[in-house]
Amino acid sequence: MTDKTPAARIPLTVLGTGAMGTALVRAWLAAGHPVTVWNRTTARTGALAAEGAAVAASAAEAVAASRLVIVCLLDDASVGAALDGAGLTGRDLVNLTTGTPAEGRARAGWARERGARFLDGGIMAVPPMIGSPESGGYVFYSGSAELFEEHRDTLAVPAGTRYVGQDAGYAALHDVALLSAMSGMFAGIMHAFALIGPEDIAPRDFAPLLVSWLGAMTGSARPAADRIESGDYAKDVVSNLAMQVAGNATLLRTAAEQGVSPELLTPYTALLERWLAEGHGTEDTTGAVELLNLRRTAASTRSDHVMDKTC
Amino acid sequence: MTDKTPAARIPLTVLGTGAMGTALVRAWLAAGHPVTVWNRTTARTGALAAEGAAVAASAAEAVAASRLVIVCLLDDASVGAALDGAGLTGRDLVNLTTGTPAEGRARAGWARERGARFLDGGIMAVPPMIGSPESGGYVFYSGSAELFEEHRDTLAVPAGTRYVGQDAGYAALHDVALLSAMSGMFAGIMHAFALIGPEDIAPRDFAPLLVSWLGAMTGSARPAADRIESGDYAKDVVSNLAMQVAGNATLLRTAAEQGVSPELLTPYTALLERWLAEGHGTEDTTGAVELLNLRRTAASTRSDHVMDKTC
Repeated sequence: MTDKTPAARIPLTVLGTGAMGTALVRAWLAAGHPVTVWNRTTARTGALAAEGAAVAASAAEAVAASRLVIVCLLDDASVGAALDGAGLTGRDLVNLTTGTPAEGRARAGWARERGARFLDGGIMAVPPMIGSPESGGYVFYSGSAELFEEHRDTLAVPAGTRYVGQDAGYAALHDVALLSAMSGMFAGIMHAFALIGPEDIAPRDFAPLLVSWLGAMTGSARPAADRIESGDYAKDVVSNLAMQVAGNATLLRTAAEQGVSPELLTPYTALLERWLAEGHGTEDTTGAVELLNLRRTAASTRSDHVMDKTC
Repeated sequence: MTDKTPAARIPLTVLGTGAMGTALVRAWLAAGHPVTVWNRTTARTGALAAEGAAVAASAAEAVAASRLVIVCLLDDASVGAALDGAGLTGRDLVNLTTGTPAEGRARAGWARERGARFLDGGIMAVPPMIGSPESGGYVFYSGSAELFEEHRDTLAVPAGTRYVGQDAGYAALHDVALLSAMSGMFAGIMHAFALIGPEDIAPRDFAPLLVSWLGAMTGSARPAADRIESGDYAKDVVSNLAMQVAGNATLLRTAAEQGVSPELLTPYTALLERWLAEGHGTEDTTGAVELLNLRRTAASTRSDHVMDKTC
């Protein structure tokens, strides 16, 4: 079922057998890897034991069992707690626990101090997508390039892999950035369903329209990226900020007509209005991203303040 | 250049030659239709005259020139103003002016009173997409099914057509619902670019990740529609509301770390938290759409009030 030679099926340890950890373990077991598991509550390891996993009595014992240690726990604090006292020297630690970029960086330093190589991961998949390459799920990795290269084939067993840099925070950053964008899209989809709610329009008939329209519009991320890189928001504008703000008024009036709260729409429409008020009406809307940068705002406020005192 | 017979190229009138109106006129001229145009400011009709359009001196004169009258003006008030005094009896009025569902319905009644058949349209395209079938742009139509059937081929010249019902408000409703969903997605994309802003990650390298991730996730609109239709938010839940809310905390902490305002994220995260507080933690997140329905909220508040007085 796999084209890997038995020699490539290295043993590994998985700490944490929640829904995601369990899916990962099953994928590696299915590919013929010897897997040692540990979970804080042992109830969740019984099924995996029956499927061939070795169950360790403690996290330290599990870490001792394999050089390659995959960690998939609730949060970063759980990682510190589970690994406290485990012998990490010479271990290859791959942390798939959800966290922030700063947590990834701090955990990388913490692992280095303990003599372990470290790779942080951000899983772009839900458990049912694990072990199914055709699902499109994948994992961002960042941190030790050596660790990634050495274990690349093993890491590719449960899901696709994308290495995004030596900075151990980058996997989480990529993960969170995509999930944040998705969250915005989900908010938009929810508002759209709320709008049609009072009408004789079947959500199932409307969904394919949403899927194809949003799918086509995802492409706008490319010209937006070009504008952000060049800093040029004025060139070749198709639908300018002033037109967008005027169009948004129709979206908000429709929400009111349909009895739908505008709360999921107004933050973006208000942001564009602020950017319009700052004189960017003939530009593309993308420049409004600058308003989200709190450090820039704080810095310019500070410098205004300095100037006030100087003049 | 077209497979239509000359007989099918019926004459038509276009009121409003802004960017969109101009693109529409050019598509019909290119297909061989005799086109009469009118615009409030005549400066914008010169180029079209040179390309073969007849320029009318007044909206009434333009309406008199063709049975099929396309209206593409700034807003609904402009439609009323332009058509005031025009002879509409026996005319087929197709209103592509951006508006709300209520405006579409009111304008349909207004046209009926004046003896015209009426179709409202919502254009899912920007002007450069008009006349390019491969662009994927299209127009929602609702209102007179007879008008739509009779002029279907002509209407299909500038962009694809999707008839969504006799209710003249449905074209605008479909249009606004999709644009609202897109607005949410754009907000999410903007937040994502803001997150990577302080880092050594090129927006151009990040954009393709956004495009493919969001593209894959658009499909979630289908199971969401199924849940809304069935009202069952508890069955076969992959990632439940409680898990989503916990995950959102990581998104918000990352925004804080990166110095990015959370304003585009918090309305949706707050909505999910409210739904969680109402006891839906083990369900799918889709049920939170009910919180957006202001009439339901108002109705349940009213009925609570009545019960308070009764008991």
